[in-house]
Amino acid sequence: MTMRVAQVASPGGPLEIAEREVPQPGPGHVRVAVEACGVCHSDVLFVNGMVPGLRFPVVAGHEIAGRIEQVGEGTYSGWKVGDRVGVGWFGGSCGHCTSCRQGDFIVCENLKVPGWAYDGGFADQVIAPADALARIPDALAATDAAPLGCAGVTTFNGLRRSSARPGDLVAVLGIGGLGHLGVKYAAAMGFETVAIARGAEKADFATELGAHHYIDSTAGTSVADALRALGGAKVVLATAANSGAITATVDGLRPLGELVVIGADSEPLGINPTQLLLSGKVVRGHPSGTSQDVQDTMAFSALHGIRPMIETVPLVEADEAYRKMLSGGARFRMVLTTAS
Amino acid sequence: MTMRVAQVASPGGPLEIAEREVPQPGPGHVRVAVEACGVCHSDVLFVNGMVPGLRFPVVAGHEIAGRIEQVGEGTYSGWKVGDRVGVGWFGGSCGHCTSCRQGDFIVCENLKVPGWAYDGGFADQVIAPADALARIPDALAATDAAPLGCAGVTTFNGLRRSSARPGDLVAVLGIGGLGHLGVKYAAAMGFETVAIARGAEKADFATELGAHHYIDSTAGTSVADALRALGGAKVVLATAANSGAITATVDGLRPLGELVVIGADSEPLGINPTQLLLSGKVVRGHPSGTSQDVQDTMAFSALHGIRPMIETVPLVEADEAYRKMLSGGARFRMVLTTAS
Amino acid sequence: MTMRVAQVASPGGPLEIAEREVPQPGPGHVRVAVEACGVCHSDVLFVNGMVPGLRFPVVAGHEIAGRIEQVGEGTYSGWKVGDRVGVGWFGGSCGHCTSCRQGDFIVCENLKVPGWAYDGGFADQVIAPADALARIPDALAATDAAPLGCAGVTTFNGLRRSSARPGDLVAVLGIGGLGHLGVKYAAAMGFETVAIARGAEKADFATELGAHHYIDSTAGTSVADALRALGGAKVVLATAANSGAITATVDGLRPLGELVVIGADSEPLGINPTQLLLSGKVVRGHPSGTSQDVQDTMAFSALHGIRPMIETVPLVEADEAYRKMLSGGARFRMVLTTAS
Amino acid sequence: MTMRVAQVASPGGPLEIAEREVPQPGPGHVRVAVEACGVCHSDVLFVNGMVPGLRFPVVAGHEIAGRIEQVGEGTYSGWKVGDRVGVGWFGGSCGHCTSCRQGDFIVCENLKVPGWAYDGGFADQVIAPADALARIPDALAATDAAPLGCAGVTTFNGLRRSSARPGDLVAVLGIGGLGHLGVKYAAAMGFETVAIARGAEKADFATELGAHHYIDSTAGTSVADALRALGGAKVVLATAANSGAITATVDGLRPLGELVVIGADSEPLGINPTQLLLSGKVVRGHPSGTSQDVQDTMAFSALHGIRPMIETVPLVEADEAYRKMLSGGARFRMVLTTAS
Repeated sequence: MTMRVAQVASPGGPLEIAEREVPQPGPGHVRVAVEACGVCHSDVLFVNGMVPGLRFPVVAGHEIAGRIEQVGEGTYSGWKVGDRVGVGWFGGSCGHCTSCRQGDFIVCENLKVPGWAYDGGFADQVIAPADALARIPDALAATDAAPLGCAGVTTFNGLRRSSARPGDLVAVLGIGGLGHLGVKYAAAMGFETVAIARGAEKADFATELGAHHYIDSTAGTSVADALRALGGAKVVLATAANSGAITATVDGLRPLGELVVIGADSEPLGINPTQLLLSGKVVRGHPSGTSQDVQDTMAFSALHGIRPMIETVPLVEADEAYRKMLSGGARFRMVLTTAS
Repeated sequence: MTMRVAQVASPGGPLEIAEREVPQPGPGHVRVAVEACGVCHSDVLFVNGMVPGLRFPVVAGHEIAGRIEQVGEGTYSGWKVGDRVGVGWFGGSCGHCTSCRQGDFIVCENLKVPGWAYDGGFADQVIAPADALARIPDALAATDAAPLGCAGVTTFNGLRRSSARPGDLVAVLGIGGLGHLGVKYAAAMGFETVAIARGAEKADFATELGAHHYIDSTAGTSVADALRALGGAKVVLATAANSGAITATVDGLRPLGELVVIGADSEPLGINPTQLLLSGKVVRGHPSGTSQDVQDTMAFSALHGIRPMIETVPLVEADEAYRKMLSGGARFRMVLTTAS
Repeated sequence: MTMRVAQVASPGGPLEIAEREVPQPGPGHVRVAVEACGVCHSDVLFVNGMVPGLRFPVVAGHEIAGRIEQVGEGTYSGWKVGDRVGVGWFGGSCGHCTSCRQGDFIVCENLKVPGWAYDGGFADQVIAPADALARIPDALAATDAAPLGCAGVTTFNGLRRSSARPGDLVAVLGIGGLGHLGVKYAAAMGFETVAIARGAEKADFATELGAHHYIDSTAGTSVADALRALGGAKVVLATAANSGAITATVDGLRPLGELVVIGADSEPLGINPTQLLLSGKVVRGHPSGTSQDVQDTMAFSALHGIRPMIETVPLVEADEAYRKMLSGGARFRMVLTTAS
Repeated sequence: MTMRVAQVASPGGPLEIAEREVPQPGPGHVRVAVEACGVCHSDVLFVNGMVPGLRFPVVAGHEIAGRIEQVGEGTYSGWKVGDRVGVGWFGGSCGHCTSCRQGDFIVCENLKVPGWAYDGGFADQVIAPADALARIPDALAATDAAPLGCAGVTTFNGLRRSSARPGDLVAVLGIGGLGHLGVKYAAAMGFETVAIARGAEKADFATELGAHHYIDSTAGTSVADALRALGGAKVVLATAANSGAITATVDGLRPLGELVVIGADSEPLGINPTQLLLSGKVVRGHPSGTSQDVQDTMAFSALHGIRPMIETVPLVEADEAYRKMLSGGARFRMVLTTAS
């Protein structure tokens, strides 16, 4: 039995379709027949070989949705062949570092990310440890579920674990792949929701997503001033990978407000201590979510009718999809599908 | 009736002794006979006229300890002539901004700081609103109580409101005017306490303060590596007014660890989002404490036998005391006394 | 100038219309021209003289909505004649007890409740301290705003300050005066919402309120079993004044789940420590909310289109309205109006 | 190779010494050579057969301290033969229930308790899953470490996870096997510590343990009044297995105070909702702690010089030790030792 993978032979190289033997799941693992796999900006880290310990050829892809096809020996019996499951950025934890022992798996010091720790989801099949699995609700199609394993859970979890409470003013910086989900989630959580993006023409789209307010960051008024005019944000969820844009929101936080950072570029945040000190403000990095968090994200999305905006592409066109994502041309998540 | 004040006639000018009429407390206010007043580095803001709305001549001083001498009409009857009270950085809140209405007085948008909003404690007498008063326990001398109104409460409160729980590794960056209190408080709160300072020769002193570990930041090993070798800090309390030194601790935090910033210089923190993101780290500005927090700090200090290390100087030598503080020569808090 | 009040001359006596001089607001107070005032079950405490320090004749009513008509001397200048304001259960705090000094006004040890500490809102006019005022958004009619000062804020605040996060299973016990609002708020906060009430016939109504699930507490299955079948509740908001019904939900909580009690009868909760211990469960009493909380409740209701279900009655029929409320016949909040 | 176990043949029967084959650890397990094992009141549940799924003969004992003697295949390589380890009430979690997936192992729905899920520590050797192991610091003798696996962690963890912050008034109800540790921990955490017990003669002992205040619950003043006279407790840690005594503390809590229940008898708590409601009080059940929590407890105890008060008895006298514990005659923890 063989399967297709879209693999990268050397750093930066194209995603090329290859045939491989279908692998067998070991103890504590399952094999998932992939139905859909989202293409995430952080796949760049693996495609370009920017993380330690990576071995080429690399099969990236960590927004996986499919069905359990085979269950390894000794694996928890609650997982059955045919179960609809997702595997996201959180591809399993080590179980024995201090973070794991404290129950904080998502900051496991040996976190396994699909595409890095093991072959990812740009393939017909994938092997994953059982603790990486999230159940997909019936109401969600595989193509809609897939991006929730990274883009979805990161925004959902970043918001629900923030200090904002229902009714608080919450701003989402950026309304792209992550941000458009962030706005939808924020509105469904009862926040007074602000979308911040570049250009007046996105105002209507922000409203469609559920935003109560829109701030055009290219307008004359600074983003901070615009947020203050609304009373100041209790939380800013920064989905834009732009340190300058992130830093520009700090003065728009309320006293005791919180900047939750989920995107990054290589520049330092230019925040001065005096911007935080007397007002008791907080800058928090937020790290995605565990498989349970992914499951919660999917359940929440199903309950509230929230879906990612996606473009689907056949697995064989993985490289084109990846390039489109890179170019910023995706509206908003590229999802590979294995159905032929 | 006249009183002495150590006033500054124009920005940066010397602290000169002048005679003034003793003022009368209005409704909701009391007059405090000052016994001791600490000299704090943030008095520089007022002496140098670096904050908006300041009118010269300025009487600085926001680490006040004394006794109530007169109670204004309509003031809460719980405050009596003769009560021993302190007034710190928190010199009263407006009561009607959103922060105040939410109970977060310490981030009052119209916070009254003695020396800025009204004449401060470098004087024989001071008028303060009743909500600025903290009761001084019998066990604390006025000279020991005074610095707790700013240096004490800021470190005490910064630690007790942090995410650290007893037994956690907590590092205090700097062991000067704020830091030496921070180490004492951290040890008394049951933290595994690390002191970080410049120079191997301070190790013994750190131990005397109660530190379980000492890191010499000038040694070959980086502070972050040294913290990681101890398991990583759950909290770093940054008392050093040095953005570079503060930033250097971030990689020494545990996953989900928290950098609590209470000191500042004018440089931005050079923190990259990637240092926070996957590890879920937090940078929090911490703003001193309310009069209730000051009272709690004093009670805690009395209960656990904690005293600031001070040098006392008569009020008439205010300028010398201020210059010594500025020069970094104080060990560790200069306290002016009014007794002649 | 005179005004009408619906007063009670002696404990339990009827609410009778009397004429009084219109009072003048003192310093820090305003006079509100009452437009609407809800009738709350806790008014029974005052009508029947069941609290200490009450003096008859009593004018009850603590769900007040109206306009500022006069501002007392020395009152915060942010409040203007004509401002639309509400006054709820929280009729002002003392400002000097430990709770107040800690910012926890709602548990002020000298809390002023309208109808108890001063004459309440069953009247054409009422005098209230400025710290008791909540701004009413334009979108809310006075009759809709009034019940939010007690029934609204108690459920809204009880939920937003609970340990539940968006997507968690949250059950509201009772769908009467408080509970029907609780279900609406829970749904708008993104909870997976369960309504629990007596009788299968209320299922459709629960769904209309926004509940995702309905449990008929009179059905064969116990409430606890029914909750467990849904995965167990993270939070139960107990609005029913029935200790037996409240206690019956405890075993339906998830591990670490929380029972938030906002209703009470005179019976003790029959909870055994073993029901809480190994599962780490929590029983929390929740005390209404401050004027800022009321303002937040109103803003949230306006933003999300949530209104209480009310019956309006002219002030002159106060006694009839009160009796109907007592009889359980109200659907769901009786609101007195002063317009003739 | 054989080992001794102190087993119970049928419910309530004596603990009799028997010889058994030394068992081999399976995958993910280790064999621990027991050096010491505390006798805990909750062993009664197993000796008397009061929990479901128990099979006789039963070997109880869940306060185990010893050394790893053999490591099963596939077990995490961080655990080595010779490592000093403890196993407490938390004898391993299932890893797949919702609580486990959320990181809340201690409320695992399939928690494995030694003496229940598998043979416990009243034996020369015991097999335990690796996730049940806590490292013992060098500074702690095995006999001192053993009781920290249940009595220690429950009080330590109950306090550190409570809402109390350093300086807050914290009362420990009972100063027996759990309570004497509770008082020591509370003092070392910087709380203003109150011990509550029966009889004036225990006051000196309470002071020796570190209590700042002592309340004799048999004196004329009620416990609640005595607590209120001290300002009201932020937290009461109820170690006494006496629902009446527990309930009697509720009115001694401050507003927003918390009763943390770690002991239980079969009577319901007689708490009325009105005791919790307006004051926002909380009753929380606290469930021991994970192996990481045990490790933290041991590290804290070593750092702060805290030891349980114990009586050691050879394993062969297990029955006598158990009976003495039952009779209330132990001062304060009976610890079996295997050294002959």
